[in-house]
Amino acid sequence: MNISTRPADLTLPEVTTGPISASRKLYTAPQGHPDVRVPLREIALSDPAEPVFHVYDPSGPYTDPAANIDIAKGLPRHRTAWIEERGGIASYQGRDVKPEDNGNVTGAHAARLFPVTNAPLRAGTGNLVTQYEFARAGIITKEMIYVAHRENLGRQTALDRAPAALADGESFGAAVPSFITPEFVRAEIARGRAIIPANINHPELEPMIIGRNFLVKINANIGNSAVSSSVEEEIEKMVWATRWGADTVMDLSTGRNIHTTREWILRNAPVPIGTVPIYQALEKCGGDPVKLTWDLYRDTLIEQCEQGVDYFTIHAGVRLAYVPLTASRVTGIVSRGGSIMAKWCLAHHKESFLYERFDEICDIMRAYDVSFSLGDGLRPGSIADANDRAQFAELETLGELTQIAWAKGCQVMIEGPGHVPMHKIKINMEKQLRECGEAPFYTLGPLTTDIAPGYDHITSGIGAAMIGWYGCAMLCYVTPKEHLGLPNRDDVKTGVITYKIAAHAADLAKGHPAAQLRDDALSRARFDFRWQDQFNLGLDPDTARAYHDETLPKEAHKVAHFCSMCGPKFCSMKITQDVRDYAAKLNARDEGMAEMSEKFVELGGQVYVRSE
Amino acid sequence: MNISTRPADLTLPEVTTGPISASRKLYTAPQGHPDVRVPLREIALSDPAEPVFHVYDPSGPYTDPAANIDIAKGLPRHRTAWIEERGGIASYQGRDVKPEDNGNVTGAHAARLFPVTNAPLRAGTGNLVTQYEFARAGIITKEMIYVAHRENLGRQTALDRAPAALADGESFGAAVPSFITPEFVRAEIARGRAIIPANINHPELEPMIIGRNFLVKINANIGNSAVSSSVEEEIEKMVWATRWGADTVMDLSTGRNIHTTREWILRNAPVPIGTVPIYQALEKCGGDPVKLTWDLYRDTLIEQCEQGVDYFTIHAGVRLAYVPLTASRVTGIVSRGGSIMAKWCLAHHKESFLYERFDEICDIMRAYDVSFSLGDGLRPGSIADANDRAQFAELETLGELTQIAWAKGCQVMIEGPGHVPMHKIKINMEKQLRECGEAPFYTLGPLTTDIAPGYDHITSGIGAAMIGWYGCAMLCYVTPKEHLGLPNRDDVKTGVITYKIAAHAADLAKGHPAAQLRDDALSRARFDFRWQDQFNLGLDPDTARAYHDETLPKEAHKVAHFCSMCGPKFCSMKITQDVRDYAAKLNARDEGMAEMSEKFVELGGQVYVRSE
Repeated sequence: MNISTRPADLTLPEVTTGPISASRKLYTAPQGHPDVRVPLREIALSDPAEPVFHVYDPSGPYTDPAANIDIAKGLPRHRTAWIEERGGIASYQGRDVKPEDNGNVTGAHAARLFPVTNAPLRAGTGNLVTQYEFARAGIITKEMIYVAHRENLGRQTALDRAPAALADGESFGAAVPSFITPEFVRAEIARGRAIIPANINHPELEPMIIGRNFLVKINANIGNSAVSSSVEEEIEKMVWATRWGADTVMDLSTGRNIHTTREWILRNAPVPIGTVPIYQALEKCGGDPVKLTWDLYRDTLIEQCEQGVDYFTIHAGVRLAYVPLTASRVTGIVSRGGSIMAKWCLAHHKESFLYERFDEICDIMRAYDVSFSLGDGLRPGSIADANDRAQFAELETLGELTQIAWAKGCQVMIEGPGHVPMHKIKINMEKQLRECGEAPFYTLGPLTTDIAPGYDHITSGIGAAMIGWYGCAMLCYVTPKEHLGLPNRDDVKTGVITYKIAAHAADLAKGHPAAQLRDDALSRARFDFRWQDQFNLGLDPDTARAYHDETLPKEAHKVAHFCSMCGPKFCSMKITQDVRDYAAKLNARDEGMAEMSEKFVELGGQVYVRSE
Repeated sequence: MNISTRPADLTLPEVTTGPISASRKLYTAPQGHPDVRVPLREIALSDPAEPVFHVYDPSGPYTDPAANIDIAKGLPRHRTAWIEERGGIASYQGRDVKPEDNGNVTGAHAARLFPVTNAPLRAGTGNLVTQYEFARAGIITKEMIYVAHRENLGRQTALDRAPAALADGESFGAAVPSFITPEFVRAEIARGRAIIPANINHPELEPMIIGRNFLVKINANIGNSAVSSSVEEEIEKMVWATRWGADTVMDLSTGRNIHTTREWILRNAPVPIGTVPIYQALEKCGGDPVKLTWDLYRDTLIEQCEQGVDYFTIHAGVRLAYVPLTASRVTGIVSRGGSIMAKWCLAHHKESFLYERFDEICDIMRAYDVSFSLGDGLRPGSIADANDRAQFAELETLGELTQIAWAKGCQVMIEGPGHVPMHKIKINMEKQLRECGEAPFYTLGPLTTDIAPGYDHITSGIGAAMIGWYGCAMLCYVTPKEHLGLPNRDDVKTGVITYKIAAHAADLAKGHPAAQLRDDALSRARFDFRWQDQFNLGLDPDTARAYHDETLPKEAHKVAHFCSMCGPKFCSMKITQDVRDYAAKLNARDEGMAEMSEKFVELGGQVYVRSE
């Protein structure tokens, strides 16, 4: 792993580059589409009898040693050709960046501007632009072809090996196919059951799909706050999060330099970027929710649409009438956006302008193909408040808004809680599917208990795995710092790995046809004492290797047929191999068990393997 | 936290003592039983309106500053009086410690012997000795009174506050009562649905109960191996594990000094200690399973019964006929005990001596009230092998053995897997209850995927929480080092905290009447910005505080009405309090919402709170 840096320019952000352990980046194209170059990560294994192993790879060019990473130039804008080819869009003189976009920051406090500017694209009225519109019109886009190919990873291998055996999950009504065609992708998007978040002004991204009939995805939140963190740190967090498997990243920055930070992130992001525009809108009116106006919010939406944000959290379900439902809660309103809108509604005693102007919001977002992530502003912030009337009232409104957004041609997903004990998780999923017409669900955890600050990646990883199994399409990570502070780089990694576990456990349990291939490859490596392969097939080879080194650091130990847990005498896997060899010999000679038992002893029925 | 040490004697183990943050140790006695002193931990809170909070406390006297801890003397043998009072037992000249008990260790390699020896106790034939026998005879023991009082912690508070609201879980057939009487404990034990593991030769322990109608318990494995770790480290791991919440500890030591290590651990253990006697038996025959004999195993059982081990893992379900069922598995046999017995069976082509001598094993264990933990020697070691014929064949045999052990008067629990994807967990629980007459289930995880070495506390914490919800009575922890190395002190803590989360999440989901009290107290502290209370009510105050310190180290920040995640401008909890105040004013004055909205702005409808 290398740190890409240019010593001559110290203000230029540094990001982590270089391949993950024993891996190389490959690109494959579906037949007939040489311009659809889908990345994957190939893991080399030490056993010649084991094929190389391919894994889904959201890390972008940063893990490709052949890529020329220049943060100041941004990633290649490879999707521009597809977007222009489809027509119906035009570039125009975008909105000028205003001082308030960056919190009126000046002088030494101002972050370095991203050096390149691009004129934004926008769709004309009546022209197809969103993936939803194309899908409804029966048109398969390049993005659909791309994600179909991307999702198929491993499926052919799985089908060749064991067509039936691997798909033994319980999918709770999901229908994950044995093979994904571009037409299947189109149909799922047209049905509203999946989205490809991909702003036409973010041509750098590598398309991915979110829907319950596809691989379960994870999101990593990054972003500075008024108290902590810098632009540089946030860009590295984005790169770092995708390195370990984040499928999308939300930039939740507040405070100063918010526009500039986002520009750096977007121009260098291979994954969809989400934001909560009301955070920036609130900055623009000095932090006073009461002063928020539709014009100010609208202006912020356009600013971010032009920059290329791929999905917006819009808390349009926090209606005036629901606010009093939260008064008796243990933890009230814990969503920042939700509390801002609640305060606005109460102060003005008016219905939310997000709800009332929802049509206009749709029109703006459609023109750039920004997807909705309908925010759960009234999500429970404690076990006590889970599944209460406030939460479900909002969810019902989100269902109503979903229909409007679809009618307007927009892509939609729905945000979900939060803090929910295990026995109340499934009803969240069922109600969301029912109320929101099966639009993809995107939940934060949920945390299954409140009693472990410092370990909320785990309290929530439990809930995330379960709701992913039940049908949640994307899991928003929670880091160990949740409730305590802003996550640093280590926390981001821990959060991402924990959520990759949850997502993968969910894929396995749903019966994804190819999910178990990786478990099996790793288990074979484990059984064969191929330590390096075991590390490299894991979600975090570096940590696994470091842990093994703590007790058995020598290179020879990486091929040793024992480990420090049991030591050389007691290795059950070694004994099993003896048992297996014995059974094989028995079968080969067709001899009776009793006869063989003596020979077994003769052949050295010893478990004792001397350590060097 | 202090380290108890005697500088004059460097070989004396050091252990961690002193109270957990903001806590003090209390003892309470049920009415009429002044000699039943049940410990609990009282957490002081900063808000005078909040009562102190009591939590279940398995940490023993080590967290009591008033206790005089002397590792070389061991803990007080407070249960001796109860045991003698019941009669039917006699002390006798125990088995001599033999050189082979400690792997023939000599000279500098020999660990310091525990300075005190006690003559062992044993029951005469026909005399009641086990908790099961007393329960069946309708006799309520002091241990039953003790655990009833211990389990009731918080229940009265819960009943007073909200008798119905808290018990909204789904218990899958468990029947957790609103109040635990000694008679209920007796009935559950008599029914075989619960055990109190408590060898009459381990009078130091503070009784606890394992059963699905009680709090979900967790076990921590410790133990050195031939490759790594020392006696000193293991004693501290035991103390350390119970400090953070381990309800029982298994000593899985192998290699040399195994008898001496166990003696130190037992004499200082406030929790039940479990072992796998075949590990030591195997040491005694040079590590060769083929040379194992009944006499050697029997001698080891008696050795450990006399020392005071509270439960034994006995792999009597690994029958000769089941061994071939594992030949085509991806990871064969992964249980150490299981593989040893499999090899013995194959080599001799004989039925397992553990199975054939099961009656005799029962007779030995009954005489000391050592509980059975019927081992799952054929548990799956990978997702691919979950719920296969080998695993379930063994489980059926464990059911058969449970009936025999009960008929012999023994207490029994059943061990379970292992590696199981989420959709196959519930069937494990259901089959165990059915096959084993509802004897308590005790599972290792299960791990819900194989792909995350280094994070198997999390892959398994997910499965543990779920199976705990479904009815598993005790969860055996898995540490981050699983599959990679022996856990160190930090790993033990991470494993314990992760499993406390799983157990508590399970209690909540089952509808334990008092479980949510802690979540609610912590959530109120969170909402009120009582940072210290939030840390102190958590499972690990030290880590929570350290994380908060990373970004906001000043003492003033511990009362600040914001945190580093959102900073002072965006705090949703602050806004909610404004909303709530506003609603309260509105109610008090009985004014219309529209009128009040103007006043709200007047009163300072600002979210902006200046940081100092």
